[in-house]
Amino acid sequence: MIFQHENSFDVKDKIAQSLVAILPIGAVEAHGPHLPLGTDNLLAERLSERVAAQTGAFVLPTLPYGQVWSLKNFPGSITITNESLISFIYDIGVSLYEQGFRVFAMINGHLGNAVAMKEAARKLFAEFPDFKLLYLFYPGVKQVTEEVREAKSAHSSYFHACEIETSYMLYLAEDYVDMARALPEDPQIPMSADVTPTPWETFTSTAVLGDATLATREKGERIIEVAIENMIKLIEGAKDAFKATE
Amino acid sequence: MIFQHENSFDVKDKIAQSLVAILPIGAVEAHGPHLPLGTDNLLAERLSERVAAQTGAFVLPTLPYGQVWSLKNFPGSITITNESLISFIYDIGVSLYEQGFRVFAMINGHLGNAVAMKEAARKLFAEFPDFKLLYLFYPGVKQVTEEVREAKSAHSSYFHACEIETSYMLYLAEDYVDMARALPEDPQIPMSADVTPTPWETFTSTAVLGDATLATREKGERIIEVAIENMIKLIEGAKDAFKATE
Amino acid sequence: MIFQHENSFDVKDKIAQSLVAILPIGAVEAHGPHLPLGTDNLLAERLSERVAAQTGAFVLPTLPYGQVWSLKNFPGSITITNESLISFIYDIGVSLYEQGFRVFAMINGHLGNAVAMKEAARKLFAEFPDFKLLYLFYPGVKQVTEEVREAKSAHSSYFHACEIETSYMLYLAEDYVDMARALPEDPQIPMSADVTPTPWETFTSTAVLGDATLATREKGERIIEVAIENMIKLIEGAKDAFKATE
Amino acid sequence: MIFQHENSFDVKDKIAQSLVAILPIGAVEAHGPHLPLGTDNLLAERLSERVAAQTGAFVLPTLPYGQVWSLKNFPGSITITNESLISFIYDIGVSLYEQGFRVFAMINGHLGNAVAMKEAARKLFAEFPDFKLLYLFYPGVKQVTEEVREAKSAHSSYFHACEIETSYMLYLAEDYVDMARALPEDPQIPMSADVTPTPWETFTSTAVLGDATLATREKGERIIEVAIENMIKLIEGAKDAFKATE
Amino acid sequence: MIFQHENSFDVKDKIAQSLVAILPIGAVEAHGPHLPLGTDNLLAERLSERVAAQTGAFVLPTLPYGQVWSLKNFPGSITITNESLISFIYDIGVSLYEQGFRVFAMINGHLGNAVAMKEAARKLFAEFPDFKLLYLFYPGVKQVTEEVREAKSAHSSYFHACEIETSYMLYLAEDYVDMARALPEDPQIPMSADVTPTPWETFTSTAVLGDATLATREKGERIIEVAIENMIKLIEGAKDAFKATE
Amino acid sequence: MIFQHENSFDVKDKIAQSLVAILPIGAVEAHGPHLPLGTDNLLAERLSERVAAQTGAFVLPTLPYGQVWSLKNFPGSITITNESLISFIYDIGVSLYEQGFRVFAMINGHLGNAVAMKEAARKLFAEFPDFKLLYLFYPGVKQVTEEVREAKSAHSSYFHACEIETSYMLYLAEDYVDMARALPEDPQIPMSADVTPTPWETFTSTAVLGDATLATREKGERIIEVAIENMIKLIEGAKDAFKATE
Repeated sequence: MIFQHENSFDVKDKIAQSLVAILPIGAVEAHGPHLPLGTDNLLAERLSERVAAQTGAFVLPTLPYGQVWSLKNFPGSITITNESLISFIYDIGVSLYEQGFRVFAMINGHLGNAVAMKEAARKLFAEFPDFKLLYLFYPGVKQVTEEVREAKSAHSSYFHACEIETSYMLYLAEDYVDMARALPEDPQIPMSADVTPTPWETFTSTAVLGDATLATREKGERIIEVAIENMIKLIEGAKDAFKATE
Repeated sequence: MIFQHENSFDVKDKIAQSLVAILPIGAVEAHGPHLPLGTDNLLAERLSERVAAQTGAFVLPTLPYGQVWSLKNFPGSITITNESLISFIYDIGVSLYEQGFRVFAMINGHLGNAVAMKEAARKLFAEFPDFKLLYLFYPGVKQVTEEVREAKSAHSSYFHACEIETSYMLYLAEDYVDMARALPEDPQIPMSADVTPTPWETFTSTAVLGDATLATREKGERIIEVAIENMIKLIEGAKDAFKATE
Repeated sequence: MIFQHENSFDVKDKIAQSLVAILPIGAVEAHGPHLPLGTDNLLAERLSERVAAQTGAFVLPTLPYGQVWSLKNFPGSITITNESLISFIYDIGVSLYEQGFRVFAMINGHLGNAVAMKEAARKLFAEFPDFKLLYLFYPGVKQVTEEVREAKSAHSSYFHACEIETSYMLYLAEDYVDMARALPEDPQIPMSADVTPTPWETFTSTAVLGDATLATREKGERIIEVAIENMIKLIEGAKDAFKATE
Repeated sequence: MIFQHENSFDVKDKIAQSLVAILPIGAVEAHGPHLPLGTDNLLAERLSERVAAQTGAFVLPTLPYGQVWSLKNFPGSITITNESLISFIYDIGVSLYEQGFRVFAMINGHLGNAVAMKEAARKLFAEFPDFKLLYLFYPGVKQVTEEVREAKSAHSSYFHACEIETSYMLYLAEDYVDMARALPEDPQIPMSADVTPTPWETFTSTAVLGDATLATREKGERIIEVAIENMIKLIEGAKDAFKATE
Repeated sequence: MIFQHENSFDVKDKIAQSLVAILPIGAVEAHGPHLPLGTDNLLAERLSERVAAQTGAFVLPTLPYGQVWSLKNFPGSITITNESLISFIYDIGVSLYEQGFRVFAMINGHLGNAVAMKEAARKLFAEFPDFKLLYLFYPGVKQVTEEVREAKSAHSSYFHACEIETSYMLYLAEDYVDMARALPEDPQIPMSADVTPTPWETFTSTAVLGDATLATREKGERIIEVAIENMIKLIEGAKDAFKATE
Repeated sequence: MIFQHENSFDVKDKIAQSLVAILPIGAVEAHGPHLPLGTDNLLAERLSERVAAQTGAFVLPTLPYGQVWSLKNFPGSITITNESLISFIYDIGVSLYEQGFRVFAMINGHLGNAVAMKEAARKLFAEFPDFKLLYLFYPGVKQVTEEVREAKSAHSSYFHACEIETSYMLYLAEDYVDMARALPEDPQIPMSADVTPTPWETFTSTAVLGDATLATREKGERIIEVAIENMIKLIEGAKDAFKATE
């Protein structure tokens, strides 16, 4: 159900049947020497395909640029302001609603997009109260991640190019990982990083926030499968909620 | 040279060497029964890959949403406002410049994006006077198109899902074309369509602006090769112009 | 029917009768040594008066500032950003609609305004679906221009202070033309000018894009009369279209 | 010194000599049965010409649309939002500065423009600290007006289509006044009109705020000559102030 | 009736009963050596409490930052742009309306806020036609002020840290006044200050626009009581006007 | 060190000495029957005073309105959009920097403000790279909160009007708490609340997210003292960091 492979004559009925559009959204961002700049796009796409396959959703073309403030000074990063990103997602949402979609699930591969996605969703919700909007970033994986991880987390709310994210890639997009170059980093993120604008070059030169050498496909699988299961439940729940209000 | 497949450690030197970033930009838009909604994205991507291969440019991830005002009421179309699109492209451009690129070539598959691309380019040029900005939509193909086409053009400045665009697809992305469903349309576009807001449903129910059954791979090849040659020349010229000012 | 010469007590009924407002829109812009900075304003005004006389339309005060990006570095040019121009025209349109006008015809003397006019028209159309909006720049004169011109056109889509525009002025505003200073230019506009931000000082020092010495009143008359005839048809068509929907 | 009648070849030196640009700014607005909708434009233009003649300033084309909130519901009024008006004036100012002008005098015929003019002036002043910006609305006429008027003023800070403004018109643009239709109004403007949004239809049906039958050319002359004298002094003072800082 | 001391369970009925919300709005701004930076906030708050006590209105928390362009270069001043201030007040107003308030009275202690308050009020009025909006700055005190003052006013429309404002403070917030440091200033404000951007440091080094040593509690009382009486009348009038339209 | 009680003559030197401005920022928001609408303002103010006393910082007037999206439909709530809040805080920051402050610490009492505070801080950081910006919301209290609390937390990242927040109020602003009306709530917040726009009325009718009857002054003291200690450290660290770069 790749949306852009559909044609205009057939798609109308299919939308009415499916109701659900999934937007993979990622970023072009430094991920150390062993992961590509497009890591977050690859993850968002692969997750979206998996989720769509089980929910009858359409997968939209990936929005491959995101808000990359923290790493924007690293080679290869491209950053979009929150304002631009909010407007762009909002516009996509308006069209989706007008085309007949009633669930708009954004599957995110890059935490920096979270603010814009939530804000765009709120604007769309104010405009179209019966539009179900989901902003999804590996929902409900906290516990399984704690079980799976060997190294301590570098930060309580984000992770980057580390044991965890590298494991995701090994499970979902192994071809793009060069484990030979994985680094065993252990950055010390100061408490102040949570309360003051802090470009990441102040505490890491590699952008790898953990011991990437500990990554395995199996670790990725365990966490990702939980995330996918949760996303499916949330989308099915949203679809049911919409149908209940019809 | 797929930019998002590069890694942050190696990419800095490569950018300094290449200097050129290509952004494929298209749209999700109705293209009749025989072409997919993502036709403009597919064309922009394939053209970009071809041009990059001969210019040493990096191909950025495709920006797959565009300004689709005229066809927004057709099934499957997604439209972005000019304001949002300008801001988004501008932000990408700022990052590209800061990353070391000095030529930013947007290869466009959808005419509706032309205004936003030009406006974004002008804003970037005002900010970074030595940044070479190209907005490219099949440059310099007017003459060869006239030679190649069998049916009369439906409009003097645009074409859509017709003999021409279908031929492009047959040459660049044949797998996505279903010639069995190609329609021999001959819409009459009133003069007023050029001077008043005119959603296309007022003159076509199919979005096919011509006789798509006349499309052939060979026609596509003849035109596309001219376009590619011109894009290469323009990019090489821009690169030379930048180097001359260093 | 000069709108600003009307008074508030009588105008309401007249608007209900006329339905049509014409906004002349031009620019203050370099036009070489033989034409004044206000050339585009003069042309827009004279055209508007002629068209109004035959359509029963009101002529609004001229909006005498426009988007003059390409020539903004030439002495005397004044440029308005697209954003400002769009907002300003949009506001005028809202008032016109609320005052009872149902056809808003912008008669343009300066190609640089085209983007803003079209964008403003689309915003107004989205707000007031039964508002007929026309953005007119010498409509339908392509063929007669080719017949009339002696010198080759410097560019396929624009002309400036040349044989053609000078002829327009000789026909519509002869007093403001100093043919003794007309220049026989033949600028070479590079292909790149269509695809990259290109201030015109890069290819002309005079802003005259052609052989102005070839201009005659008669040439102007032949083209202008076609333009006027087409504008009248378009306005009458719009008026009829509105009445049909009442 | 009509700016738009100049040509691009000669104007550069003249600007360097003159330094001063005058922008007449008015409105299209209901002014009762005896004055035209364009009253404020006519006044601004005539004043500007007079002032320019004595200061060596250039008169720019009139900006004929203004902020007409209070009277926007009267037949014939056209209103521009403050945001649009600020941006538009700001853009004009930027071009004037870049063209070499160092004094930008806005001569206003419509009080409703005051907020936008002041705000635009402040933005330009922040951008170009040596740019002298004047927003002029009959400066320094308070005393002479008190001496001249026969009827009591309807409001302490504004006047409209009344004894005073009609006298201005009789002096500056007599041909556009129809004294036979002048009304002897005496509207009671409630105190609340100064402290709450108050469309004028709540206290007048004619838009005439006073006894227009008392207007005479002589009254107009006495006040207008004071205003002109003050405007000349202010412009000369600004020119001197600029020269002193060079 | 301090709004923020109410609780959510009881407040709904009280709002329905009161209908009136008062927003004290001031500024942080230089007021010479004898008055504090928060003078305008203190005055707005004290006035609001007095007015609320007699109208059954709720006093909202003070908005303590305002537009302080003229004095922004003096030590201690904090300035908010008009754009930001308008948006902020507008947002407050939207919530007040949705909470059930039908009269929104802004009691202002700082003249610089007047433009933003009026603009925000107009936007709210356009959105909610039955919302009564008041922007109040010592209404109706002109005559009593003339009677009370001993020194001549430095300017016809504003006063600052002088005999008058210091008297206000002596009456309403005496503890914050240090009369021992009051200065007997007599600044000469040039006519140009009304027509060109004029930071006040160009005509005063103290920000005291008059003879503050002449201030007395009694003078303050006489003027303030008139202002309070007028504000009460205006609020009661607005309440009655709303009830009449229900 | 109450900033608005200072006067303009003395404050300049004091700013140079102090370098640190603290902005208390809260909200007007439903907090159940036992806590006032201004709870977050009271907390922010009291915390700010405590922190200022030990750091030599100035306390600015409280910004008493915040982003209250989730509870905006509860009686008494007032909400500001993120856009307005970002602009307002940004403007304050610009003035603070220009006044000589080099550390701008926002002490927040309302989690909903977090996005706007961070965004404003980033904009200020981009503009003034040596400006130290802190957005503080009970930093570093996670562990002590877990030790102190008796009831399970209703949500992993926010708390509201519950055991915890009520304890804060008992410690910092006891007079405003009515423990007799404290409710022992135990709302079930669905997983979907984190991933879809979810007004809180969908899962609570009281806005109390926990057992408020368990609140004690002692619990509040234990957590608040940790927060204060951390805020002092962060501010001292920022001051030192600034001095190191001078």
